[in-house]
Amino acid sequence: MRAGIITIGNEILKGKTVNTNAAEIGKILHFAGYDVFRGYVVPDIEEEIRWAFRNMIEICDLVISSGGLGPTFDDITVASFAKEFSLPLVRDDKTFNKIKKSVESRGLEMSKEREKMALIPERANIIENNVGTAPGIDIKVGKARVIILPGVPSEMRSMLDAVSGSIKVNDIFFSEESMLVEGIYEATIAPYIKELMEKYGGKVYIKTHPSINNKGQSSLEIEVSSRGKTIDDSKMILMDTLRDIASIVDNIKKHGN
Amino acid sequence: MRAGIITIGNEILKGKTVNTNAAEIGKILHFAGYDVFRGYVVPDIEEEIRWAFRNMIEICDLVISSGGLGPTFDDITVASFAKEFSLPLVRDDKTFNKIKKSVESRGLEMSKEREKMALIPERANIIENNVGTAPGIDIKVGKARVIILPGVPSEMRSMLDAVSGSIKVNDIFFSEESMLVEGIYEATIAPYIKELMEKYGGKVYIKTHPSINNKGQSSLEIEVSSRGKTIDDSKMILMDTLRDIASIVDNIKKHGN
Repeated sequence: MRAGIITIGNEILKGKTVNTNAAEIGKILHFAGYDVFRGYVVPDIEEEIRWAFRNMIEICDLVISSGGLGPTFDDITVASFAKEFSLPLVRDDKTFNKIKKSVESRGLEMSKEREKMALIPERANIIENNVGTAPGIDIKVGKARVIILPGVPSEMRSMLDAVSGSIKVNDIFFSEESMLVEGIYEATIAPYIKELMEKYGGKVYIKTHPSINNKGQSSLEIEVSSRGKTIDDSKMILMDTLRDIASIVDNIKKHGN
Repeated sequence: MRAGIITIGNEILKGKTVNTNAAEIGKILHFAGYDVFRGYVVPDIEEEIRWAFRNMIEICDLVISSGGLGPTFDDITVASFAKEFSLPLVRDDKTFNKIKKSVESRGLEMSKEREKMALIPERANIIENNVGTAPGIDIKVGKARVIILPGVPSEMRSMLDAVSGSIKVNDIFFSEESMLVEGIYEATIAPYIKELMEKYGGKVYIKTHPSINNKGQSSLEIEVSSRGKTIDDSKMILMDTLRDIASIVDNIKKHGN
């Protein structure tokens, strides 16, 4: 099952804000069993937002977006998405009343900008926003499920948690572990790692991250993730791989880098 | 002038690493005068890397990528890029000798994995890597300029600094300033901000970021960026806009949110 992540907002593109949302969404998707296949970042421009959803839906089973749900003129994610898939926008009364109550309690008046946050594509499910105002959207488009979340990280995170139970891929379990080894060069171990991954035929993914420790020695993090049809299966494959790596490391240490 | 940012690496997609590289590249591009138009994140898969470059080059004048230049099996950015545009890979002797020297000084042997980092697409310029090993690549493909940088942030940053002088857009200057106002709601000021941007016809971009200050009051950051044909021009537009915003803020405070 493939998943794609869309981030909407000029502030991300021009580097004012680091895209922590995409990382948090990616982590959840990965551990839910998805192959996180692509990430798009697009500006607050209708045509671009429409392109991102249209294109991502063609290649992914699950698409999660963040950004563009607030009250300002450039918050146009829901309207752009609805237009792309010819979904009429309808007012969600529960959300509307929540906004109205919050607005009135502050002695303010309801405005078009505030009302916009209660407009929801027809037949969409709503993801309640318990941290802020604008709700999220959960809807099926063609074969893909689309989840639209706000860009404010605290709101996004709380709503992502709320849906995370419902996006789990059946019958795929992941295990992950990292080894930290010293005195081994990334380029030395690289061909062995490649062989090892071929041996496990796609059930294991191994990534190395070199770094220098505080004694000035080169150390290498070897990150192994495995997938299996049961949790025991994935753990067994992980353990086998870690044993294989340990013997490769021993061998390199014995014979030199 | 449009610019696009490509980030290559599974670790970004699955949220192990936050994409700080894209933010740093975005900032440099924005202040160099580009419209930072799209960001792609793709896995270490040849077809995906080829798609990202092929597609981004069609819509952008400048494309900057990071990731996938190291010695491991999944570092395939240069080979994938070269294949997509039918560019033969040639050995860069200066880089090869640098790698060889570094390898031999550590008592190691040259390997295929290490040599890979010296393979450069024909007719590409090299961006020297003074922090690590793999050099960057600077090449024209069709009408676009493509700059390929490593994923290790310290290496990426140093090479980005080295090219930043050469990517400046002529005759576009940017000025930016933020105002922090208290007691004004984002949704209240939103329609005035929209009008103001229309008044300046694309020369001004205004973004609001709501937050709660430590006294529990809602404060609003109003971020204004302006562009002009000279630095004086962009500064003048910025000052005019800030004055307009100040009078809008005064008005809202007088008449209530």
